[in-house]
Order: sequence, then structure tokens, then C-alpha cells
Amino acid sequence: MSGKGLVSRSEDFSKWYNELVAKADLAEHSDVRGCMIIKPYGFAIWENMKKELDRMFKETGHQNAYFPLFIPKSYLSKEANHVEGFAKECAVVTHYRLKNADDGSGVVVDPDAKLDEELIVRPTSETIIWNTYKKWIQSYRDLPILINQWANVVRWEMRTRLFLRTSEFLWQEGHTAHQTKDEAVVETEKMLNVYASFAEEFMAMPVLKGVKTENERFAGAEETYCIEALMQDGKALQAGTSHFLGQNFAKAFDVTFADKTGKKNHVWATSWGVSTRLMGALIMSHSDDKGLVLPPKLAPIQVAIVPIYKGQEQLSQISKLADKLVDQLRAEGVAVKYDDDDAKKPGWKFAEYELKGVPLRIAIGPKDLEKGTVELARRDTLTKQFVKQEDVIDTVQTLLNQIQEALFNKAISFNKANSYEASSVEEMNEILNKNGGFVYAFWDGTKETELKIKDLTKATIRCVPEGEIEKGNCILTGSANAIKVVFARAY
Amino acid sequence: MSGKGLVSRSEDFSKWYNELVAKADLAEHSDVRGCMIIKPYGFAIWENMKKELDRMFKETGHQNAYFPLFIPKSYLSKEANHVEGFAKECAVVTHYRLKNADDGSGVVVDPDAKLDEELIVRPTSETIIWNTYKKWIQSYRDLPILINQWANVVRWEMRTRLFLRTSEFLWQEGHTAHQTKDEAVVETEKMLNVYASFAEEFMAMPVLKGVKTENERFAGAEETYCIEALMQDGKALQAGTSHFLGQNFAKAFDVTFADKTGKKNHVWATSWGVSTRLMGALIMSHSDDKGLVLPPKLAPIQVAIVPIYKGQEQLSQISKLADKLVDQLRAEGVAVKYDDDDAKKPGWKFAEYELKGVPLRIAIGPKDLEKGTVELARRDTLTKQFVKQEDVIDTVQTLLNQIQEALFNKAISFNKANSYEASSVEEMNEILNKNGGFVYAFWDGTKETELKIKDLTKATIRCVPEGEIEKGNCILTGSANAIKVVFARAY
Repeated sequence: MSGKGLVSRSEDFSKWYNELVAKADLAEHSDVRGCMIIKPYGFAIWENMKKELDRMFKETGHQNAYFPLFIPKSYLSKEANHVEGFAKECAVVTHYRLKNADDGSGVVVDPDAKLDEELIVRPTSETIIWNTYKKWIQSYRDLPILINQWANVVRWEMRTRLFLRTSEFLWQEGHTAHQTKDEAVVETEKMLNVYASFAEEFMAMPVLKGVKTENERFAGAEETYCIEALMQDGKALQAGTSHFLGQNFAKAFDVTFADKTGKKNHVWATSWGVSTRLMGALIMSHSDDKGLVLPPKLAPIQVAIVPIYKGQEQLSQISKLADKLVDQLRAEGVAVKYDDDDAKKPGWKFAEYELKGVPLRIAIGPKDLEKGTVELARRDTLTKQFVKQEDVIDTVQTLLNQIQEALFNKAISFNKANSYEASSVEEMNEILNKNGGFVYAFWDGTKETELKIKDLTKATIRCVPEGEIEKGNCILTGSANAIKVVFARAY
Repeated sequence: MSGKGLVSRSEDFSKWYNELVAKADLAEHSDVRGCMIIKPYGFAIWENMKKELDRMFKETGHQNAYFPLFIPKSYLSKEANHVEGFAKECAVVTHYRLKNADDGSGVVVDPDAKLDEELIVRPTSETIIWNTYKKWIQSYRDLPILINQWANVVRWEMRTRLFLRTSEFLWQEGHTAHQTKDEAVVETEKMLNVYASFAEEFMAMPVLKGVKTENERFAGAEETYCIEALMQDGKALQAGTSHFLGQNFAKAFDVTFADKTGKKNHVWATSWGVSTRLMGALIMSHSDDKGLVLPPKLAPIQVAIVPIYKGQEQLSQISKLADKLVDQLRAEGVAVKYDDDDAKKPGWKFAEYELKGVPLRIAIGPKDLEKGTVELARRDTLTKQFVKQEDVIDTVQTLLNQIQEALFNKAISFNKANSYEASSVEEMNEILNKNGGFVYAFWDGTKETELKIKDLTKATIRCVPEGEIEKGNCILTGSANAIKVVFARAY
């Protein structure tokens, strides 16, 4: 046991994660199967993520809009692969009214209020959106359409884990329409790069960019690009996907445009999304046995100030300094909290802010007032230093930048140390059993081999990494000219 | 016909509204009954509303969180009034899977995937939230809880109008928990005041504050406070509500706390919400026969710059000035768009920005370059002036403030001019038939009278206005000691 009673990562990583999500007040299970409650502290982190992503989407020319929660059942069937992928796990609305039970026991579904056509709670919105784009697109002048929506979606899940796999989750889904294949591919890659930049610059989480195999592709896509991150337990996590949809949805919904010569063509499409799953990725990338470790750029509280005092007289002297620091830090855009709650001891507060991953903690005691100093503690390294009061603002800003960078560098080192090459299935299994990690290996390109390796190792092909051109012999079949891909056991 | 082919307000207000919502690209009906699509321009206005409201909620100590979309059917029944109010119009999820139809015709509901207990798509979240608060609240130390969520909700509607009444809509719902009745009442009133401030300061829309009659109260509330606005057609619109819930939900879900003496008490509650309905209120408050008129504080584009030119040489000279103005305006936080689209004529652009309600338009032609001026046009008054180029930034800021104020003052005058007193039902009917408006009249306080007056006049009691103490004889029954309330025909 460590921190506020968390099991350690080495002892039981999965339990550590569950305990941390609960104890740091991030989220909890609701009584509704698979649906989570995102608590205020967890939601504040998600809001910071949203804010930066939204800015990045807008800077790349996208606008937000909102489409219906419900999708008529028949729409799902219009794209053959899509329905196969999504019909299996969806919430179906069949009625639109309840009535009082005859026996007075409560309310029951009113059989007279049955819908002619059932409605599906959106698992993703390609179908309802392309049904709409059909009305919006006539000419090349209507293109491109570059739209994003922030929404809740539902994919029925029997086994759920907070943030990682829930029946309802929050996400954004971009849906774009283009005149040419090239333009759509450029868009798909652009948004993958936006995701990668966000992951690296804000989450301090290095990612591998690549494309999925056909087997792992989004249902209805021609190509699925992804970013893959490596968690501290050596398992991979798909952190975002960007799909080149070709003309599949345009054909399914008959969406054409007249080009400059008047010729009608089907429109080219992309879609791309990240979800509250990123919360899980963030937690498992940096946190330690004492609790969360948050990158400063996403931390709801970047600096917590804790007074150490005996009696109201000391507190009021400390508060004078603290209030001044709070004002100065806020003026510099730093999210700071002064915690002068008299009902809680400093030691309790220290543990609490450690648990919550607050990047910097300032403690101020009577000796600091005498000496003109404060004590500054870093959450990531758990190191402390005394800083002159007049230097606090500069030091805080420097340290916040340093922590952001240090977390990223540490994660990069971890990724490097846990990336392997394997030349046989046995070798891969050995690596995965011992360390987990990303395992680079040659694969002959067939679904059969892919599934067989998965059977033997529990590892999936995370992606065909960007820029990888080396070829060799398949680790299962030995076929020559196999391509190099990245395997991992994954969330 | 006027503007871009809008019917005029005087000719057909309802049609004018529908055409405006469509032509200004705000929203449209989807193929899913009652569910709307909020288009990018409409959504950008809603985003601006959200941003300001969210800031105001946080400044008054609230935090955001997220609760499940689905509510188990039995939860709805736990509060007797609540279920009466919401069971009649809800979307019911009964199954969690589709399967391929035997005849290959598509997908059908899988009868094996029937839920043990049906799930209701939330029409409002009191029940699921109080079921959660039960776990969060043990002691007075856990109180108050001050939480808000931004979410989609569904109330099945047969007759829908974009923004005003849709089956799915977007809103925020605050749900707070308190130790005492007084504290909860203070919170209820505080949030009503937040709504009123938002309506007046940002939407430039004066509102009447008051409480609803028992008949018009939220299902499950002890008291419903509301803000009521008057639209240009003389109809009232309920723009926001704040409910004092007493201990109703605490009792229904058995939520108690131990006070300082260790005694257990039921918790006191409030809930409060505004929705995308505010979009309808905004549109109908200020817009005219040429299109939208937006208050500068909520306009996605505050200033549009249109070049008037012949040939690329002139355009590039104008663009040099325009680019400079854009940079300067952006630096001052003004949302500005330079529209140098060569495929569209200036006249078309002028009409477009009028239709979209852009508060200020700057036109720059070759003569302006000679004279060192630009032409500045106000959307609200449709007046134009020439401004020296070096004065543009200051003038724009001054004018944006003036427009915001002018819209509010105009709406106040309209409200005053359309507020009446009636001393009989006949008089009220006459006023309403002729002008619409808010009609102040005495009412004896009974539901019977309220419904009878509604029958006779199609007017409902919008509220018992704040601070109103005058008493008199009921306009229907003549009973003495009747209270003064506000009647109106309403959206």
C-alpha cells in the first residue's frame, strides 16, 4: 500500500488503475449497465482536453455542428460493412411512451406507442450525417464540408472499464466531404497529425502513427489511420483514429456533386474521432503509486498552495502572502488553488494533491515568512526546493514547462525501452510475457496469419507504422516480402 | 418579399421564423421525427451562449460533470409527480442488439437481446443524479454539491418547431444539494438571477422574473422560478427555469446527511436549466425582415469586411488594408471575417451578412483607398457612415457596444409598449387579439380559474412576478384579495 491506500502498479496494474480512478474522483460506474458517471475532477481534465482539441480543429478549418442522437434502423443497413460492425452492440429505441401499470405497480411501456421503425442510439454518426450531406451537396461549390461534432455515443458493452470501455462515452467525430480522393486522403492524414500533436504536446504522450490492417479497420472505411500509445504496463492503447472512407458512404447514400464541367461524381469522405478513452490513456501514461501525475497543460489545478500554521494569527500572515501569489499566478494564466481549509491537516492535503496529480505544490510556514521563502514540491519527481518569494512566479512557470517536457521525455524513454524486434512467434511471446511493449515483426499481409498470431500470442497488429519500408520473412509463415508491423497486447 | 426572399414578420411571423432559421443556416429538421440538425452557423451562436453561461456557472461555484444518458424505468417512478410529468413523452430503449433478418432484407431487433428493465433516454436527470448523490452524501461535510451538466435530452414531441420544441434538444441542467431549505432557496434564486443577467447582458433580451403557478410547475418541484421574455409577435417565451425541489428527490431516493450533531436529515435540492430554446428566443427578439439581428456579444462574426473592386490589382490594394484591419481587430478580440471570395458579388455578400445578422459591415472600395476612409454599416439600424482608416478600430469597438445597448433598449421599449393591465377576461382577450403582449391581471389563485381563463383566452399565467404585492378582484370570479399575475399567449 502506498499513497492514499492505492495498490502499487507492480503488484496489480489493473487494480491500481481502478482504485486510482475512484480515489482521485475521476469517474465511477452508474447503476445503468456500462454507463459511467464522470465526476467533476475527471470532467475538468476532459474539458481541458476538449478545449485544446476544439481549438486545433477550428485552426484547421473545421466548424462544429450537431446531428441527431437517433438513427433510423434502415440507415445502418445502407453501408454493408458498417452495419456488420455496429448492429451487434447498439441500444434500440422501440417505443415513445410509458403508461401507468394497471396494477398500480409503476409505469410500463405503452404498447400503443410502438415506433414504425426502430431508432438506434448512435454508435457513430456516418449514416445520419451522410443522409444529411446528400441534401447539402449539389455542386463542387458546396465542397469541402469540414464539420465536427462533440457528442455522446452508445455501443453496448458487456465488460466495461471506466474510460477505457463503456457503453456510453463522450467523443468528437469529424465528418468531412471532398471533391477528390487526394483531398480526402490529405484530410485524413492531417487530422491524424492533429491527434498526434495533441497527444504529444498536451498529454505528453508519445504515439506511434500508422494504418490499421484490413481486419482492424473501421467498419466502412477504406483505410484507418491511428495513433497508438504504450501504457506503463506494456499494453498498447489506440488513442485516436482517422478514417479515409473513400466513396463508400457517398455511394450508400447517393451523394454526388457536379464538378466544374457539370459531370456528376460521388463525394469522397473522411471521419475521425477521439473519446473519453483518452482519459484512460492519460492516467496510465504518467501516474504512479502515489496517484495521478498530470501534465501541467491539462491539469485543472496546476499549483496548490498549502499553509502550515498554528493558530489564526499565523494563518492570516501566511494568507496575506498566499493571496498575493494567487493573484500574480492567475494574472499569468496559472490555475492555482489556495487551500486554507481549517478542517484538514497539511499532511492530508499533501497526500490529496499528490493523489490528484497537481503538478506543483507550494507550502508556506512561519519559517518561510521569516526567511522570505516558500517550499515548492514537484509532483512528477517528488522533489522539493526552497524558492525566494520574489522568484515564485518565474520559478512556477519554468517548472510547469519543465514538468511538461520531463513527462514527455520519460514516456519517450519508456517507449524506446519497451520497443522490440521479434523474428519468431515464440520470441514475440517471450517478450510480451516478460515485458509487454511494442513488438516490431514481419507479417505476410494475410488475415489468416494475423488471426493465428493473435491466437498464439494475444497480440494484435496495432498498425503498419508510418514510413516503415523494411521487408523480411513473416514470423509465422516464413513467406518472403512480408511487411514490418507493430504487434502488442492492447486495451 | 424582402431581404433574401424572407416573408415579412407582419405578413406571417411564424413563416418568417421558419424561413429565417433555414435561410440563415441555423438549423433544419432531420429525417428522424422531432430531431433537429444544428448547422455550423447556428451552432456557433449556441457555442457563444454556452461559453458565457459556463463561465457564469463556474464563477458562482459550480463544476461540470456528466451523468448517464439512460435512466432505468423504475427510477422515473420514484417521485410521484415527476413520473406523471415525464413518462408520457419519452424514448424507451428495450433491446441492445440487432441481427440480420432471415429474409436478407436488412437488420431486425434481436428478440434475444431484450433488456430486463427498459431504459428511458433522459428527459431530465433528477432521478439518475439523486440516485448517485445518495452515494456521495453522508455528512454535512459533503454538502453543498454544486454540479452542472451540458447534455442532450429527449422528450417525445409530435409537433415540433426548430429550437422552440424538438424531441431532442441540447441544454444544461444544474443539480445542487444543500443542508437547509434556506440555502437551497438562495441557490434557486441565485441561478434565476444568473439566467436573467445572461439574457439581458448577452442576449440583449429583457426578462420578467417570477414564479410559476402550481399548475405550470416542474413535475417534482416545490416552486419553479422562471424568466419570461416577450417575442416580437407579442407571444411570451419561457427562457429559463430554476426549481426549488424541496426534499422531494432526497426522500424519493432516500438521501440523508448527518448534521453537526449527528442527526440525520433529508437533503434539500435545486435544479435549473436553459436549452437551445434560447436560440429561438434570440432570433425572435431582435431579427427583422432582412434577416437575423444578432447582439454583438453572441455574434460568431462581429465584423465582415467586403472589398469592392474591379480586377486583381484593385483587390490586392484593398486586401493590404483589409488584412491590416483584420490583424488589428483580432488583436482587440473582435471576431472579424474578410470576405475576398472572388466568385461572389459585393451585393450578394451584403445581403448575406444582413441575413446572418453580422452586427457591422465594412466595405472598402478604390475611392476609400484614395480618401483614406472605409464605409461602416450597422446591421441593427441599417445606417452607414464613412470612417477614417485610422479610426476604424476604435469606432468598431464603440459601435459594437452601442449596438449591444441599442438592441437591449429597443427590446425594453417593446416590452413596455406591450405590457398591459386588464380588469376583465374580455378586456384581456381584446388586448391579446389586437396586440399580444404581457397582460397583468388579478387571479384568485385557483387552478380552476387558471384553466378556465386559458380556455377563454388561450393565455397562460406566465408567472407571479417578483416583488408584485398589489391585490385586487379576480378577473374571472371577482373574488377579492386576488394576486396580480402576468398572462400571455406563449410559445
